[in-house]
Amino acid sequence: MPQTAEKYEIAILGAGLIGASWAALFQHHGANIRIWDPKPEALAEVAARMAGPAAQMGQVAPDVGLPGRLTLCDSLADAVRGADLIQENAPENAALKHQLYAEVEPLMNGEAVLASSTSALTWSDLSPGLQDPSRLITAHPFNPPHLVPLVEIFGTDPVRISRAEQIYRAAERVPVRLNKDATGHIANRLASALWREAVFMVQDGIADVEAIDAALVNGPGLRWSVLGAHMSYHLGGGDGGMAGYLAHLGPSQERRWAALGNPSLSADVQAELVAGVTRAAAGRSICELEATRDTALIAALQARKDAPYV
Amino acid sequence: MPQTAEKYEIAILGAGLIGASWAALFQHHGANIRIWDPKPEALAEVAARMAGPAAQMGQVAPDVGLPGRLTLCDSLADAVRGADLIQENAPENAALKHQLYAEVEPLMNGEAVLASSTSALTWSDLSPGLQDPSRLITAHPFNPPHLVPLVEIFGTDPVRISRAEQIYRAAERVPVRLNKDATGHIANRLASALWREAVFMVQDGIADVEAIDAALVNGPGLRWSVLGAHMSYHLGGGDGGMAGYLAHLGPSQERRWAALGNPSLSADVQAELVAGVTRAAAGRSICELEATRDTALIAALQARKDAPYV
Repeated sequence: MPQTAEKYEIAILGAGLIGASWAALFQHHGANIRIWDPKPEALAEVAARMAGPAAQMGQVAPDVGLPGRLTLCDSLADAVRGADLIQENAPENAALKHQLYAEVEPLMNGEAVLASSTSALTWSDLSPGLQDPSRLITAHPFNPPHLVPLVEIFGTDPVRISRAEQIYRAAERVPVRLNKDATGHIANRLASALWREAVFMVQDGIADVEAIDAALVNGPGLRWSVLGAHMSYHLGGGDGGMAGYLAHLGPSQERRWAALGNPSLSADVQAELVAGVTRAAAGRSICELEATRDTALIAALQARKDAPYV
Repeated sequence: MPQTAEKYEIAILGAGLIGASWAALFQHHGANIRIWDPKPEALAEVAARMAGPAAQMGQVAPDVGLPGRLTLCDSLADAVRGADLIQENAPENAALKHQLYAEVEPLMNGEAVLASSTSALTWSDLSPGLQDPSRLITAHPFNPPHLVPLVEIFGTDPVRISRAEQIYRAAERVPVRLNKDATGHIANRLASALWREAVFMVQDGIADVEAIDAALVNGPGLRWSVLGAHMSYHLGGGDGGMAGYLAHLGPSQERRWAALGNPSLSADVQAELVAGVTRAAAGRSICELEATRDTALIAALQARKDAPYV
């Protein structure tokens, strides 16, 4: 059964790349979208910005029903009033978001959820912007949001969290809950930790930028697209599973952690990173690289439908 | 054009899981395999051990020609003599590998490459076992070797490295070169760094084991299956690419690195890791989990053929 979000009214605040991606995702799954941006020119461009993601949604989820209605709203009130979910994609500035929330909150109906797409800020940074902080959740998508299923969620009201999760699931997202507010949520903490070691290997001369990327994409990255990191060690423990792994190899893992690097982004290292991705890009523009990434992501998502991950 | 390795003679030393996986891979791609194990009972079981990987190879690479010849060798000399590549999969014990190399080296022809599948040891640990260390490379596969394409290579003789890379490529592997010997090669250093933060988040109560795995598989893991970590930051920098990213967000990335955790595998943390993977496994045995992983990996590899990664 294809998922549908057709019963939902969703406000998208901010018509940039992330807002357009959310809008295309939810609209494709049947939700009615009211999109608002403080800049009229951004609002005017949103249909063009949604065209690519909308076409990709047709490839990823071809069998859902009719798309929902898209309304461009000149006023914040028109977007927020009556919405079940308000997905906020304002710039990463707490004071600016607080100001916006002060305008949004009186317009929300009692059940509505205000969800921030924030990457760099946390719920604790943002919740002082509301009279009733329980209305707010952080709901961080992983770029690009209409293709990568993860939405990382933290909030304090279990009822609102559940309602938001239902809406994300209806658009075939995979919501994942944090138990505690944390900078970088889960995914960017993992990505940061991995990249720190990747940069260290460049700094230390262990391998080139493009060799490290090739190793990741053809090794652990491929495996982590079907199997989590914890579960990998469970399978690595043989019949003993995770307990066996920890008993036999826990001490050597702790020694390995102690031997990992702590690089600095010195001018030399920065130059090598730039030179490395330039070699790897081999003349392809950012736009061309993104198109290749998206085609590959869509193929990976289609493969997943027949062969679900562990 | 399907790759073929039919002109190669390959010795596989060690008939355990890794040896059987290599054997199934190379045999499927047409190479003639001579497999040896010091334990006759391991050798007797190798055909059974290869059956699963061989069937999977038929799904991953259906269009290659006839499989090569498989010979079970009672003597090391029968396996090694005349081989182009000797893939060694002995237990992770340097002294034991040195002993083995002392027997192997006089049997090798002048052009042959001795390649160690070692995960935990390095070329510097192993090379003292040879009269001529330039004959040795480390060639670390990522589990399971017949499905995950990565082979991480270090050695000192560029001619032998190139020859080994040709053989791995003929079996549709992706060889990646280290410039310098390093414990954990590239991939296990990245995996260790990521898992350290994953364990920290469990220890600190940020998220449950299964939430962290779900975030990885539906977020960065999925993206890293099509796009390397360095290239992700290049795309994250917008039109400015990596240089733009580093200029604007380099300092905040360094602060983020400083905020990452440093967990210890205490009894409590170990108990939580075991409980978490047990919940996530939901009654599935290691064997069932591996089968699900392999089916998903095969689907991901098939998707890659039509939509190559960045």
